[in-house]
Parts: sequence; structure tokens; C-alpha cells
Amino acid sequence: MARKKKDTRTNSKVRIIPLGGLSEIGKNMTVLECDEDIIVIDCGLGFPDDDMLGIDAVIPDITYLTDKKERIKGIFITHGHEDHIGALPYVLKVLNVPVYGTKLTLGILANKLLEHEYESEPQLVCVNAGDTVEAGNFSVEFIHVNHSIADACALAVKTPVGTILHTGDFKVDYTPVDGETTDLARLGELGRDGVTLLMCESTNAEREGYTPSEKEVGRGLDGIFMRNPDKRIVIATFSSNVHRVQQIIDASLRYGRKVAVTGRSMLNILAAAIELGYMNVPEGAVIDISDIKKYPPEKLTIISTGSQGEPMSALYRMAFSDHSSVVLGAGDLVVISAHAIPGNEKLVSNIVNELCRRGISVFRDQAVSVHVSGHACAEELKLMHALTRPKYFMPVHGEYKHLYAHKEIACSMGMSPDRIFVSDIGRVLELDSKGMRFNGTETAGNILVDGLGVGDVGNIVLRDRKHLSEDGLIVVVAAVDTNIMQTVSGPDVVSRGFVYVRENEELMDELRSLAQGAIENCLGGGKIEWNQIKNAVKDELSRYIYQRTKRRPMILPIIMNI
Amino acid sequence: MARKKKDTRTNSKVRIIPLGGLSEIGKNMTVLECDEDIIVIDCGLGFPDDDMLGIDAVIPDITYLTDKKERIKGIFITHGHEDHIGALPYVLKVLNVPVYGTKLTLGILANKLLEHEYESEPQLVCVNAGDTVEAGNFSVEFIHVNHSIADACALAVKTPVGTILHTGDFKVDYTPVDGETTDLARLGELGRDGVTLLMCESTNAEREGYTPSEKEVGRGLDGIFMRNPDKRIVIATFSSNVHRVQQIIDASLRYGRKVAVTGRSMLNILAAAIELGYMNVPEGAVIDISDIKKYPPEKLTIISTGSQGEPMSALYRMAFSDHSSVVLGAGDLVVISAHAIPGNEKLVSNIVNELCRRGISVFRDQAVSVHVSGHACAEELKLMHALTRPKYFMPVHGEYKHLYAHKEIACSMGMSPDRIFVSDIGRVLELDSKGMRFNGTETAGNILVDGLGVGDVGNIVLRDRKHLSEDGLIVVVAAVDTNIMQTVSGPDVVSRGFVYVRENEELMDELRSLAQGAIENCLGGGKIEWNQIKNAVKDELSRYIYQRTKRRPMILPIIMNI
Repeated sequence: MARKKKDTRTNSKVRIIPLGGLSEIGKNMTVLECDEDIIVIDCGLGFPDDDMLGIDAVIPDITYLTDKKERIKGIFITHGHEDHIGALPYVLKVLNVPVYGTKLTLGILANKLLEHEYESEPQLVCVNAGDTVEAGNFSVEFIHVNHSIADACALAVKTPVGTILHTGDFKVDYTPVDGETTDLARLGELGRDGVTLLMCESTNAEREGYTPSEKEVGRGLDGIFMRNPDKRIVIATFSSNVHRVQQIIDASLRYGRKVAVTGRSMLNILAAAIELGYMNVPEGAVIDISDIKKYPPEKLTIISTGSQGEPMSALYRMAFSDHSSVVLGAGDLVVISAHAIPGNEKLVSNIVNELCRRGISVFRDQAVSVHVSGHACAEELKLMHALTRPKYFMPVHGEYKHLYAHKEIACSMGMSPDRIFVSDIGRVLELDSKGMRFNGTETAGNILVDGLGVGDVGNIVLRDRKHLSEDGLIVVVAAVDTNIMQTVSGPDVVSRGFVYVRENEELMDELRSLAQGAIENCLGGGKIEWNQIKNAVKDELSRYIYQRTKRRPMILPIIMNI
Repeated sequence: MARKKKDTRTNSKVRIIPLGGLSEIGKNMTVLECDEDIIVIDCGLGFPDDDMLGIDAVIPDITYLTDKKERIKGIFITHGHEDHIGALPYVLKVLNVPVYGTKLTLGILANKLLEHEYESEPQLVCVNAGDTVEAGNFSVEFIHVNHSIADACALAVKTPVGTILHTGDFKVDYTPVDGETTDLARLGELGRDGVTLLMCESTNAEREGYTPSEKEVGRGLDGIFMRNPDKRIVIATFSSNVHRVQQIIDASLRYGRKVAVTGRSMLNILAAAIELGYMNVPEGAVIDISDIKKYPPEKLTIISTGSQGEPMSALYRMAFSDHSSVVLGAGDLVVISAHAIPGNEKLVSNIVNELCRRGISVFRDQAVSVHVSGHACAEELKLMHALTRPKYFMPVHGEYKHLYAHKEIACSMGMSPDRIFVSDIGRVLELDSKGMRFNGTETAGNILVDGLGVGDVGNIVLRDRKHLSEDGLIVVVAAVDTNIMQTVSGPDVVSRGFVYVRENEELMDELRSLAQGAIENCLGGGKIEWNQIKNAVKDELSRYIYQRTKRRPMILPIIMNI
């Protein structure tokens, strides 16, 4: 597609509204608005915080967009990771607008959409790096970047008030597995022509130096294969890192091993990647996991999910002897080719401990290099800034500390702090020919996904779950006959998650009699005030229980009217 | 005290029973038994796992000891950290036996015991490094070691079948703050005379090289003070690390600053350490936190708790503007002088993000060295093995992977694997003149502390808490008149932590009518089977709810008999 002629109107303005990805890891989504036209960059999910009990995923609140469907020219996806595409299955139910992305990105997305139903078919539009999509007042150019998933792109968005460059997630890999380095020349060209605003990812902004090449992992793995010709090798990694998987397959073939794959997401993505031409797997190289018995163990590599220690992942099931096809033993070597995401260390340790206990050798990212990051470290970020020389800069993708560190990097390169906008979700940035500034806020936040429910769990429900999780529950039930002003049944006291009842019958009896007293006391007044009775029971029991146990279970009085 | 003459009986045997500290971090406790005599080494608590909802602490199951109180000659404490003394307040209620420890260790312990009540006064017996305590068949020598708390000791236990050396927690610091390096000469002497069994800590066994000296932190802090003469400096660290606190005070004085202290445990331990002579604080150097307004900010250092990000700690309250005396601002510098313990990273990040957001500079253990570990790394462990040259070796203190790594270190030094015993809690090791071997198991495990309750929360209660935390609760209440075989009130449906009820009234109505149907169906049989009714309600609702929401709330049917 041709590049758009530069628009010379100067009374336009662009509003930039981040709906996710600032002051948080994940849930990346940004709205760009110019006159009547809107485009969206990425539409990802976030993983629930520890205090979001029972929640499966978090997606951005898209209230701002719901009444503007007709104005949205498209959702532009930088790459196929969950934190960039994961909210689309939900958002497309509300906003069925075109989704633009590269082949692998859309392949992974299409796979996810299969699990959902849509009134009208989602519109997925495939583009290649180098392509430009015209979208009303915007034209969006896809630019190849390196990342821990293939086919990732930065987006250069031409607007009437200048070029906005959004890097997506990237690193600069001079020896990438597919031979294609981040398109530095094009980034430099954009910089020369003038980048008005750089929106650049900040994940590794706190880390000095450079992120090593993915090929480093290939070398690390090769060494492991070479030194362990007598062992079966199990390697767990992220399923979406097709280049990593390719390198594992290549090393296996080099050392005369067959490859078997286990774990649903690994099988799905592998199939998509092979079909779409992102992997090069010779006929017969990959065998079915149920066929591994046909080969000697030392002639096998097993590629597995579970590198984050996820319970019930393939690696977890193998470690805890619960896998239908693989029984691990002292002749096996397990490689965890991943870095534990904060919060997952204990899960990963659980698996490592269990493997050690069973005499299985484990390699993690310590002595041998079996993992590299997919994100740019400080020096690569500097390279991005040096190439694009933006007028304004907005660090994106990261907790506040990452955005702040990225701001400091830009300052260290001589950028004036008043041209750097460390923002937050919902906070509107306005860009016009006069400059850039914050201007108001729009609705933004977290929508919680729990099972099939999207948005039906909020703070009150979470607060109750937290309360229940800490000290459990006591239900007090009584039936009151309002004619005779007496309890005709109960009060019964039922507890869950409070104490082991069989060993605390005396306490439960106490509670029953306290509840009885509280109810009778209220009924003695001659007038029925249901709320008064409930509160009396609650107060009486809370006080007694706290005094005796220093715990505060949820107390749920239910008084029935007969 | 004199060293005991070597016992030459050879038909004795020693049983070593770990009650905690193996395949786990914390909860350290080991029983040594010889003929009728028993001694115990350490008595610590563990922190609850993520799945121990609402639990405050975990202590060792001491069932094995409860009927042997008369035989216990003493509990010997290596140092004053929670994971070595934290279970004593509970255990001493059951086993009031003498507790031996150094001055600071007992000072910290005594402080904790104040919060509890005892039928008879606990017997705390103070010893010095170098002292030997006769305890029946055992004689226990305290040997000075370096650690992240002052006054830490290893224990050399002479038994009729040889010397058992238990290192406690240690590192080898050639430039310790108090000038006293781990007593390498004495360890070497023991090695020369013959150590039969080495029980050595394994916390850092996976880490290569050496742990740096505590003085490194002093240098790092000095640099921060030097380069920031215009800022108030807030430093959060572990309250028990009195040498760290001493270095902070020293640096403050060097740069003309007053020191204020905030956080209950920091105040407690500081008071104890000064009183017992473990710190050197000139008159007037430390001021009350409420007096900080009397001094210019750049002439102040604030030492704080909260280095693990603990909610409601002093640092947390300062970060979130909830501290009664300290209001942080852009002129402040915060140093977190600690490493986040696995599981606490997110808590620490919360605080760092909030500080960055408010423009407050934060130093953590990155560019500048503001923390070192208190545990020996691989090369120091090798030094311990080389000095003591044990006949048998049992790695202690660590998850399985740490014990395993420590075993590999011993093997790399030429020790035969069949002399190395990687054990588990409750597993009995038997040592006699013929050798050492596993021989059976004794009761061991976790006792959960929740509020005032010790041991009244077990697996059933925890399972319920987990269930409640994930999908909440639905209570169905109905009153049935058995004379007319009809429901006379209800069924009412009450939910907590399930969905936001106001926006889901239709669903709640459905549930009510399903419950009604299930009850009527059961009553239609003409015979009342209470359990049958309950199960019918539960099954009916579970099925419907799962189908509609993919959630599994706890369903609690309560059917009252009128």
C-alpha cells in the first residue's frame, strides 16, 4: 500500500487515551482520536492481582468506546501476546470493528475467537510488516520489530498533526532466529522526517545494558544437548515463542532426537505456526506424545507448557506423576526455558523441588543461558530514542517505576522533562499544532472476568471473597413466628472455613445460645424489626468471637418470618 | 564452663528427628535424642503459604515431644530470627523446659514472650559464644558465627557417638561490623578432632561464590549519604539486623544527621540492642520521630520497618501518606536496604511505584549495594565442609532444591553420596558406632496459628476458605412444616462473593425457584429425608450455576423443621 500524502491541516487535534498498560503490567490498549475518526492500538488482558480472588482475567473498561462504534476505523494489533490481544474476544462482542494484524498474530487470535460466539463474524484483516493501512484521518504503518514472538510490529501512525510512533513490545536482536532485525532503517527514516510523539514500551527500563539475542538461548540449549547424549530432555517454555521452539527442534534434529509436544496451548500455537509458515519442521521430526514409547528416551526431546509453574500444565503434571503419556525419572533432564514472572516464583519452585526430590536434573536460567528477555533494556531504549528523535515522549507498558525509569533515560539523553508525559489510564493527552498537553480524563479501569461473567464481579463481591477467605463464615438461621413473637425453629449455627467444628462444639453451642439471647431480647420489645434482630445477632457474635479467637468471620444472620 | 570428657560408650545411639526446616523455608526445629535424654535445636515459625488463607503463622507439630517433657534437657537457640525462635511462645506453653541462647537472642525472645501468658515463668538461660552447656548425654558448645543478626551461634553437640555440628544460619564475614569473624579456628579444631555429622544450612546453596561483607552495605550507604547532602534519607531494613542499623546510625552521625526510628519492631529491637550493649549510640544521636519537625530535613535520617513491603508497616504508611509523623515529598530519598523474599516482590513494588509516582527517589539493591545476604554462598559452604571434614552430612534449612544443591556441593568436594542424608521432617536418622542410617518416621507437620487459635484450623477449614474465596457462597434457607409437608417460609437465597446481586436479580429469582422445585419434589415423596432435600437443592443449583456462569460457589442449603 502507498504511503499517505502528508496532511497539512493544522487546526486538527489528536487525543490519546490510554485504556490500559500504564501503571500496570498487561492490559495494553490505547485509543487515538482525530476529529471523527478513532483507531485503537492493541486490546490486551491483564492477570489478576493477588487480591482479585477467583478472577480469571482483567480486561480494559471500554465504556469510552461503546457509543462510538461507528467512528472506530479499526483495532491495530502489534503482536499476538495475551497482554495485547487477550481482551479482543470480549471487546469484539461489543465493538465488531476491523482488526488489523500480521499473519501469526491473527492466526493466534483466530484460535482464541473459536471459543466464543459472535453475532456477526469478526473482521480480521491481515497485513505484512511494511504495509500501511488508511484509517480515516490516520494512516498506520506496520514496522517489523524483534520480540519473544514472531511477526511483531511497531506502528507508525501518521496524523494531521504529525507522526505518532508506538513501539509495541520490542527488543533489538542483531542475530534473530528468522534473520530479520528490528527495522532500524525505517525507524531512522521516520526520525529524520520527524516523529512528533514516541510511545515506547518500558518493561525493562530499569535494566542496564542490552538484552541478549535469542540465538544465545540456542547456544545454551546446544550445549545442554551436547553434554547429555544419554538423557531424555524435557524443555518447558512459552508456547508463543515460536523461535525458541524452532531452536529446540533444530537442536533436537542436530542430535538425532525426535520431538514430542505436550500442553494444549503449545500444540495449538505450534500447529498455527507450522501452517502459517513460521516454523520449519521436517517431515517426521515431530511425533505424537503417545508414541514416545516407540523411541529410546535419549533419542527424544519433549517440548512442554508450564514454564511458569502453572498448576495442571503439562510440566506440572509430569513433575507430579499425573501425565498420561510421560513418566519422568532419574534418566531425564528438565530445562525451564523462561524467567519466572513476579508472583510465579513459588509455583516454579514447587515444580523444581519436586523434580529434585525425584532425582531429575533441572536446568534453569542460572549457569547456562536458557532464556533471554523479549524486551529492550536501557541501551536499546536509548537506541530507539536516538533513531526516532521524538518531539514528545510518553513511556508506556509498565508499572509506574518502569515508566519513571524510562523517563529518566530520556532525560539522560537530553530530552526536556516538560516534553515527557508519564500518564495514567483514562488520562487524555491532546496533541495539536501548538503542542501537547494533558486535558481531562475519560472512563478507564478494570473489568473483571470470572468464568463466563464479564463485569459482574466488582469491589463488593471481591471484598466479600477476601473476608470469607481470611476467617470463613458463620450463618445463623432462625424462624420467628410473629404471632406469638417467638422463635419456632433454631437458631441454628452453621460455619464454614472458621474452625474445625467437631473439635469446637462447645464454642458452637455458646454461639447458638448467644444468638438465641439476642433474638429473644429483640422480640421482647413486642415489635418486629428484622434489621434490628440481624444486627443484634451479628454484633453479639462478632464481639464474642473476636474476644475469644481474635478472628472476624463473616456473620450472616438469616431470620425467617413464619 | 569446661569441655566434657569424651564419652567412650559405644552401645549408645543418637536419633536425629527434624521437626521443621527441611523441604521448607523457616520453621526450623531439630530433636536430638540419646538414650533417655533429649535436646532440641531451635524452635522457629514459618510463614503461611499462599494457599493457607487467613493463617498468621505456621509452627512445628511437636506431638513427638509432648509426652517426653521430663526427658528434654533444653531447647538450644542458634539466633534470634523468627524462623528460629518464633514457635517458642507457643511451644513453651506445652513444654516449659530451659531455653539456652545468647544475650541478644534471649532479649528478643523475652520481648515476644511478654505478649503471652504462662502458668510458670519460662526459664531463659543466657550463654556466651564459647560456652558449653551440659545436658545429660549431650554437651552443647556455642560457637560464634556471622549472620544478619548479631550474637548468632553454631552448635557443636558432643554425644556418646561423636560430635554433631549444627551450623545454624551463617555466613563468613571477614570484615564484620562488630569485628568478630565466624570462629573458623574453633570449627577447624572440631574438624581435626573429628566431626561425625555436619548439619549445615543450605539457604544460598544454589548461589555461586561468596556473600559480600556487611561492610559493603556500609560503603554503599556512605556513598548515598555523601551524594545526597540536601535530602532527608529514609532507610527501611530488617529490624533485627542491628549491625545494619548501627551502620546507618554511624553514617548519619558522620554526615551530621539526627536519626529517628519508626515501626514497632524496629523500636523494640533497637531498645533491646542498646540496653544489652549490642549497639553504640551516642547520647542525643537518636531523636523521637515526633520531634523531626525541629530539625531541617537534610539533617535527618529515618530508619523504618517495611522493607518487605508489608501493608501497614511504617514505610507503607509513609508511602501512602498515612503516617502520623512523616510526610514524604520530592525532597526525600528512600533506601530499601533488603532483598524481597520470594512472594513479597509485588508488595515491595507497590511501595516503590507509589514513591516514584510522588517524585521520591528510591534506591534498591541495584546499582548501589544497599543489602547483602546473611547466608553462606557455595564457596563459604565449601569452607565449612573443608574445615569440619565431617564423616556424615545432612543439609538443613531449605527447600528440597536447596538441600539438593548443597548435596551436590559436598559431592563435588569428594564426599561419597552414601554419607549424605537429604532428609525430610519427621524422618528419623539414627547414628551409632556402626554408622548412620534412616530408621523410621515420627509425627511431624504444620500446626496453623490463626488469631488466638493454635491448631484449630486444618485442611477442611482451609479447603472451605479456598472454595469461598474463589467463587463465593450461596445460602438457601427454607422452613418446612412436616405436618403438612410444605415449605412455610422461603426458600430464601442469600449470596456473598458470588455476583453483584442488584444487577443479577433475575438470576437470583431463578435460583429461588429452582430450589423451591427441588424441595417440593423431595417433599412429594411423603417422607422427610433432610439430607436428601439438601443434596437435591445443592445439585440442582450447582448444575444450573455452572452451566450459566462457569463458576462453582459454595452452596449451603439450610432446611428448618417447624
